Amino acid sequence: MKTKHLTINENRRIDVPQLDMPPRLLLGPGPSNAHPRVLQAIAMRQVGHLDPTFIQVMNDVQDLLRYAWQTDNGFSLPISGTGSAAMEAAIANMVEPGDVVLVGVIGYFGERIAEMARRYGADVRVIEKPWGEAFAIGELYSALEEHRPAILALVHGETSTGVMQPLEDVGDLCREFDCLLMVDSVTSFATAPLFIDDWRIDAVFSCSQKGLSCPPGLGPLSFGSRALDKIHSRQSEVRSWYLDLSLLAKYWDGETRSYHHTAPINMNYAVREGLRLVAEEGLEDRWTRHRENAEFFWQGLADLGLECHVAQELRLPALTTVRVPDGVDAGAVARQLLNEYNIEVAGGFSKLAGKVWRIGLMGFNSRRENVVLLLDALGRILN
Amino acid sequence: MKTKHLTINENRRIDVPQLDMPPRLLLGPGPSNAHPRVLQAIAMRQVGHLDPTFIQVMNDVQDLLRYAWQTDNGFSLPISGTGSAAMEAAIANMVEPGDVVLVGVIGYFGERIAEMARRYGADVRVIEKPWGEAFAIGELYSALEEHRPAILALVHGETSTGVMQPLEDVGDLCREFDCLLMVDSVTSFATAPLFIDDWRIDAVFSCSQKGLSCPPGLGPLSFGSRALDKIHSRQSEVRSWYLDLSLLAKYWDGETRSYHHTAPINMNYAVREGLRLVAEEGLEDRWTRHRENAEFFWQGLADLGLECHVAQELRLPALTTVRVPDGVDAGAVARQLLNEYNIEVAGGFSKLAGKVWRIGLMGFNSRRENVVLLLDALGRILN
Repeated sequence: MKTKHLTINENRRIDVPQLDMPPRLLLGPGPSNAHPRVLQAIAMRQVGHLDPTFIQVMNDVQDLLRYAWQTDNGFSLPISGTGSAAMEAAIANMVEPGDVVLVGVIGYFGERIAEMARRYGADVRVIEKPWGEAFAIGELYSALEEHRPAILALVHGETSTGVMQPLEDVGDLCREFDCLLMVDSVTSFATAPLFIDDWRIDAVFSCSQKGLSCPPGLGPLSFGSRALDKIHSRQSEVRSWYLDLSLLAKYWDGETRSYHHTAPINMNYAVREGLRLVAEEGLEDRWTRHRENAEFFWQGLADLGLECHVAQELRLPALTTVRVPDGVDAGAVARQLLNEYNIEVAGGFSKLAGKVWRIGLMGFNSRRENVVLLLDALGRILN
Repeated sequence: MKTKHLTINENRRIDVPQLDMPPRLLLGPGPSNAHPRVLQAIAMRQVGHLDPTFIQVMNDVQDLLRYAWQTDNGFSLPISGTGSAAMEAAIANMVEPGDVVLVGVIGYFGERIAEMARRYGADVRVIEKPWGEAFAIGELYSALEEHRPAILALVHGETSTGVMQPLEDVGDLCREFDCLLMVDSVTSFATAPLFIDDWRIDAVFSCSQKGLSCPPGLGPLSFGSRALDKIHSRQSEVRSWYLDLSLLAKYWDGETRSYHHTAPINMNYAVREGLRLVAEEGLEDRWTRHRENAEFFWQGLADLGLECHVAQELRLPALTTVRVPDGVDAGAVARQLLNEYNIEVAGGFSKLAGKVWRIGLMGFNSRRENVVLLLDALGRILN
């Protein structure tokens, strides 16, 4: 075809083969394998994003998310992007230029929050712990007293270290200091106790591809009333149009349903099914399952003579950092697990590069048979 | 389970039924129905996003995208969000505060570009045409001469009006004025001629759920060297971390593969398959198919006594705006099509509310049998 004498260049008309991915068992820090029922749901035929039947899907997703997060928050919905987009949505809406934002950094993802908050004009203050530790409540008290931030940001499940930051009492502390509490629950969501309302957390974000056992692509986000009050009384506009809460809220509200973007329809089918599985199992059984399989794994590691990097009381049930024994090449072991056993685990990075493996037992993958398979394969490679 | 005396609130543990969506034929402005092979691909088992086999998927997607867009641009990849995210990525990276950005508004999506550019600090100048028309090259010349913008933004396929803005000569014109050309190809992508390189377009963005026949969720984006030069010489930082080109480029580069976010794995499977179908069919045959089915539809509309809103030479092959006859309730007809025939079409909105229907024949849905079914159903409802 010629359009004004132009000819189609067929050089790039490549012939790629049919998609055929290897049968990996994903035991890294995420993604985890999607639940088979999630993969059935994602392939369901589409309806329009303004179809009455899709509005019902969106309502289901929001209701089920409120169960999974134990919250009555009206604004509880998946951002149409990955967990990092949900993180940015929380920051873009809550942070105004000049706000003091105190970030508790216990690993890489705290650093990412600090970086994003800086880009959105915050006066960022950072407190740090060595990678593998968490803040004690007294340390947070002192920091709040010193910095008097508008927002305290903490990472509940630190993917780079395998640490679970205790949060039970932090919400009350933040109210004493008239400060909002923002929590990264990317790696703890649907695998470990998190009570948004009872713990008085003002904003939480997560992802779809870890504890929820969906593909990556959506980022659940919940704002409480104190966060919404701050957002609604902003002096400056939210910079991002795509992530602007005021536009998103009207789109996700079943009554107004005001057009914003086109929701990722099939990914919402997937997340609905993932959340439906959470409700079916029940949070108590789900948290217990993750805890028990983690403990079973930790015992197996000890039997192999391997050590966990994090003290037991601070370990994430969904993600364990295992110390690499002296003289062992961490990357070579991970490659051998992948190439010979189709098992993905990850190495450490930044401050933990070469020092740990990061091994996830998340959502559908938190099963006894996966633990024994991995332990057996690890034992064969290391011995 | 009790955690510090907390009990799980089971009130929200709702029991939603298995997902079962109606068999809609999506002939609105998008989403279109995903191609069946795309729905097979999206349900393929996952691998990790850093798996060597997924790097190959990412490379395939980029190569196939370059064919579909007829470009050698190194930066040609899908943003991990919808078309609106890709639009925002183009603006967030290219626009610096104070830049004069000239937006050609021929419908709603031009207004959206102007709004986003304003949020990113641009000195936005707007030129407008009535909804249903496009700019002549002389009008663009005059506006460039008057405003001397750093960037001219035009909408190639205006989803709100069904107009295709002629672009062949605009790239040359922009170079005369040392101005970058940004193009919204959300509704024209893979359905109508677009030559990024030959037409000298500096930045183009699109979506996955229209001409590509994938679910919504990814937003293809391509930057040419002049756009990259501007971005690399920015005085101010890109505000958005999630959409920052410098981070995305390193993540999508097969060599560096530097971790940024977690790519939506299954959506990338889908887009790879959608682009593979484009290469299989070939651009020439694909553009011809869309053109011929559109003309067949336009003839059928005339036979029913219905008029198109847009002059034939400016019509998008993928999306037709049909004038609502006097005395007909546009919304009632659309509801009847949906409820009685499972066919989705959309009404007009804003300046065209109640005045037109928007009817899409996009990607997999651009088939003769869909045209005759729709014409028959329309005829039964209107007569």
